[in-house]
Amino acid sequence: MVFRTNRRGLRPEAPRLRPRVTPTELAKVDFTELVPEPVPFLGQAAYIQLEFFENLARAVATAPTLPAKEGLSAAAGVALRKHHALIAEIRRLGVEPDDVMAPFAPATDRFQQISSGADWYELLLGIHVTAGMLDGYFSRLAAGLPAELGARVRAILDEEGASVVLESELRDAIAADSQLADRLALWGRSLVGDTLLIARSALRASEAPGSARADQVEPVFTELIADHTRRMDALGLTA
Amino acid sequence: MVFRTNRRGLRPEAPRLRPRVTPTELAKVDFTELVPEPVPFLGQAAYIQLEFFENLARAVATAPTLPAKEGLSAAAGVALRKHHALIAEIRRLGVEPDDVMAPFAPATDRFQQISSGADWYELLLGIHVTAGMLDGYFSRLAAGLPAELGARVRAILDEEGASVVLESELRDAIAADSQLADRLALWGRSLVGDTLLIARSALRASEAPGSARADQVEPVFTELIADHTRRMDALGLTA
Repeated sequence: MVFRTNRRGLRPEAPRLRPRVTPTELAKVDFTELVPEPVPFLGQAAYIQLEFFENLARAVATAPTLPAKEGLSAAAGVALRKHHALIAEIRRLGVEPDDVMAPFAPATDRFQQISSGADWYELLLGIHVTAGMLDGYFSRLAAGLPAELGARVRAILDEEGASVVLESELRDAIAADSQLADRLALWGRSLVGDTLLIARSALRASEAPGSARADQVEPVFTELIADHTRRMDALGLTA
Repeated sequence: MVFRTNRRGLRPEAPRLRPRVTPTELAKVDFTELVPEPVPFLGQAAYIQLEFFENLARAVATAPTLPAKEGLSAAAGVALRKHHALIAEIRRLGVEPDDVMAPFAPATDRFQQISSGADWYELLLGIHVTAGMLDGYFSRLAAGLPAELGARVRAILDEEGASVVLESELRDAIAADSQLADRLALWGRSLVGDTLLIARSALRASEAPGSARADQVEPVFTELIADHTRRMDALGLTA
């Protein structure tokens, strides 16, 4: 399992509403029981990294300060590296990456539009929430790939990327503006449903004989939501 | 001198108007006579690479096909690498990169707005023309830096970046649409003046005792314009 470390500690003193999304059952999921089809799995994961890259690049271009540009541009570089590394894995399997990614483009493009927000801070939280959930998800799902491929894919996806700079920029902004905190809490919450739909579609795309059906794997999503709650907590936002 | 190879050969058969910008005097310029101040030189060069990265990332996000996204995203990665490598050189000199880049931000941001064009093809040609001229220019100017620093900076700037993918996308589009060719020829021509102003400002920023004054180095610009003409020729466009 991937636990995100909370670099600055939780804030137990902050009063919080009951989370709307409650991770009630933290049942341990054995991800190796889920057997994704390597080609569509890699295609979707690669295309999603390209979208994260595009979002991060937009965050760079619209950043209000040079230090923000600097941190975000490094994070954009990581997403781009993940994208190209996954592309390389697709080529290794003897398949043309464009053909493999194309079926995922429409839904992922729509998801990108939905999750990019109304201003720079919503864009940042959109990346933080969606990339946090989906990187963790695809990395866990990679446990069901053939062993060597799975290990390489996990190494690609687990590279520390945007989370540190996004958390830092968002915490500073939230600390300075309580209205922003309220708005971002709502915004973060609203992203969960669409992110889970993308995650679910990854299982649908992989439904091969012997693989788990999407409706059998609800506990997977419970873990994703628990991660999400921890991520929002770390920002002092109510999930 | 940096000559761009023309991968698909010139097109001597294509009728061309007399170039508006005529490289009449190809006097050999000794760039080592120009002695840029390392810190502002690196600051401006680093910030310009960040802008190229932002433009390329925008070209990725708005690309009409997946193969175009693929090639452009790799090129965006190169620009980002150049930016971060130049930042690292600034840090090596014991200076904070943000402080060094900040003075160049307003003019470079304006330049970015001017050169980003009205559609995807103008954006691509804008990057091709301005990055082509300015990478070549800063690389040549680096000859006047202290020897080891100069060699490292040239190696950073000379990495093959966007030109191949930009030329390929533009040639395909121009071949398919003669109206586009006319429009892009005009657009490319209109970019030269602003690009030269940025190049000139690099000398102004570096005016230290003993360095050449901007008004003594007109031949430098003649070379840049000759490069530009070759670049436009390679696309079948009249410079």
